[in-house]
Amino acid sequence: MSNIIVQKYGGTSVADPKRISGVAKRIISYRRKGVDLVVVVSALGDTTDNLLKLANQVSYLPSEREIDMLISTGEQISVALLAMAIHKLGYEAISFTGAQVGIITDSSHTQARIIRINAARIKRELAEKKIVIVAGFQGADLSREITTLGRGGSDLTAVALAKVLKAKACEIYTDVEGIYTADPRIVPAARKLEMVSYDEMLEMASRGAQVLQTRCVELAKRFNIPIIVRSSFSSKGGTMISKEAKKMEKVVVSAVTLNKNESKITIRDLPDRPGVAAKIFKIIAQEGINVDMIVQNISRTGYTDLSFTAATDNLARTLRAARKASEEIGGGTVSADRDIAKVSIVGVGMKSHSGIAAGMFDILAKNKINIEMISTSEISISCVIRKRLAQRAVRAIHKQFKLEKP
Amino acid sequence: MSNIIVQKYGGTSVADPKRISGVAKRIISYRRKGVDLVVVVSALGDTTDNLLKLANQVSYLPSEREIDMLISTGEQISVALLAMAIHKLGYEAISFTGAQVGIITDSSHTQARIIRINAARIKRELAEKKIVIVAGFQGADLSREITTLGRGGSDLTAVALAKVLKAKACEIYTDVEGIYTADPRIVPAARKLEMVSYDEMLEMASRGAQVLQTRCVELAKRFNIPIIVRSSFSSKGGTMISKEAKKMEKVVVSAVTLNKNESKITIRDLPDRPGVAAKIFKIIAQEGINVDMIVQNISRTGYTDLSFTAATDNLARTLRAARKASEEIGGGTVSADRDIAKVSIVGVGMKSHSGIAAGMFDILAKNKINIEMISTSEISISCVIRKRLAQRAVRAIHKQFKLEKP
Repeated sequence: MSNIIVQKYGGTSVADPKRISGVAKRIISYRRKGVDLVVVVSALGDTTDNLLKLANQVSYLPSEREIDMLISTGEQISVALLAMAIHKLGYEAISFTGAQVGIITDSSHTQARIIRINAARIKRELAEKKIVIVAGFQGADLSREITTLGRGGSDLTAVALAKVLKAKACEIYTDVEGIYTADPRIVPAARKLEMVSYDEMLEMASRGAQVLQTRCVELAKRFNIPIIVRSSFSSKGGTMISKEAKKMEKVVVSAVTLNKNESKITIRDLPDRPGVAAKIFKIIAQEGINVDMIVQNISRTGYTDLSFTAATDNLARTLRAARKASEEIGGGTVSADRDIAKVSIVGVGMKSHSGIAAGMFDILAKNKINIEMISTSEISISCVIRKRLAQRAVRAIHKQFKLEKP
Repeated sequence: MSNIIVQKYGGTSVADPKRISGVAKRIISYRRKGVDLVVVVSALGDTTDNLLKLANQVSYLPSEREIDMLISTGEQISVALLAMAIHKLGYEAISFTGAQVGIITDSSHTQARIIRINAARIKRELAEKKIVIVAGFQGADLSREITTLGRGGSDLTAVALAKVLKAKACEIYTDVEGIYTADPRIVPAARKLEMVSYDEMLEMASRGAQVLQTRCVELAKRFNIPIIVRSSFSSKGGTMISKEAKKMEKVVVSAVTLNKNESKITIRDLPDRPGVAAKIFKIIAQEGINVDMIVQNISRTGYTDLSFTAATDNLARTLRAARKASEEIGGGTVSADRDIAKVSIVGVGMKSHSGIAAGMFDILAKNKINIEMISTSEISISCVIRKRLAQRAVRAIHKQFKLEKP
């Protein structure tokens, strides 16, 4: 184990010169403790969005290679400013782009995957006792083309660097204090979790928790790199994400999550014969659409209805694909319902405890909330309900499972 | 000679998405004529200034390495957007940073010098019939550190690429239509020059003409690369800058230039003995200050006054250096005068014609304009006068030498 800590600061943490100076002070307070620091930074506040707006003013369908050339400048600006802010406080720091620091990716522009990291340059600068600041979210392919890593890419950069440098910790600084039992804006009694397993975090991320992206957690899980999520605006402890911990075995339900960004698509009057569902979802997958929950009604007349959920962002494209599928199969009309929400409970202990699902359905019934779709996994149960009842449902479930108590 | 044309577009030409699209159309109109195009672009409008403002909010004395990391993003944004705009019009284009395209410089951050250009990548893309778009003003040193080339750096990039690629022309697109006999805002009758020699252009640049920087002209002269300066907003012909052309031999005075950005610094009561001036200007040079004109009064009492001009931008630093020098030498008070202007006439024919200087002094006298300092070179004569009389002087001189007539 090295003496290296990798820290990642998100866009809101470095939104303006004042906050950049604040982050610089925080970094130095760690440096004073004698650790070697590698700091990964996102673009300032809305920079990436503003650059994409510029691109869309020039072209309605800009090339992905040129998008990467354009938006990778956002993180380059952040790292240079942060290095300047650290210098001003009298400490040595040096900033790097992803390409300079040897983050080699494949050539899938705007969603590249890291192939390897040549950390020689970082190690050399650390040996000279410099604080190394690395542009998150970006790398370069083998032809030195600039690439970006897609959503949550800076977290991925941090975890990948922690792996290569054998860092003793990977800390993700953000605008919340850690992972909560529920969104504190919905459930004021929500409690910050001390520890969460990789699997729980993966479920929570895919069920609506916005703090970490799944790719970053998957990478951390694969190489067993503990992540600490904490606030860049306070000194509180945060949440540790690591392997399933012993002391967590008694915990049944860890958190309630809510996703309001999915719609329900229904295809009516499908012939009820084997292979129909397979054919439909093959056509939809070919359009690059990720389907989440799927429910098929019981057939009464030789015809059946099929519903599924998918991100509302791509709804127009999803509907086109579903209509194409229905036509090919000889099905009926296709409709979409945006007014749904998916409420989920997540917890590693769940699989070995009976009655958890019943408890969830029961409390929803008591609150007169109708369940429209259900899906379960090893460590989660999700229900689709009306969107306007979502907050009431989250609060009731949080209380039912006493999540406010440690 | 290749079939390559290098074009450079300045910041005002690509100030916003609409202008970027306009430049894209212009580029394509050349592409259609079958030439291979390498396009050098500056940062959008005020981008560089805005980035420097951010830097100054973070640190009052930011490191030059980090300034280069920061401001090099400006051109990277431009090239990506221009490539997108060209794609939209249905043509192939690809953008590059200075580092990607093999522009190797020394390590003098913020004012690096180009050592060599490895143009293999550009040639490969041109062979694939792509329009190659290169970020101006930047390069990378041998350790892949990002560097910038200083003021007018994008022009330098264009001329250097024209040299390496053996381009058949190097066109500098700007917001004026070419090089004029005087600033048209001051002299409405000013005439656009068809041709100007490198030496005249160098004199004009150092005497106040703002269109091209001296470094770019020096490079073009050294490798005999003709430059065409023209407007990106019109289709008019522009001005050709090349070796002293035959048909120019009869021309005596080519242009009048004006520089209002210098101040006069006077050191009083210096001991009048050999070596004093040398010592003073050695001290001033050590502070990195470029002195322009120097005048020393005739000694009457064993003491003498010495005046020189230098850029008003660095006046505080220049005054500090001059005071230090005066103290070391046993001189008297140092004072500065910002209310001066330098008016110059430039022309290759001048050296072989008598009476030119007399004509200039005479017309100033007729206009009751007092001359405070005079300096002459092979192809120019400069007079320091009161700033408030500068425009009157330029108009009178322009008329005196009949510059409005070809």
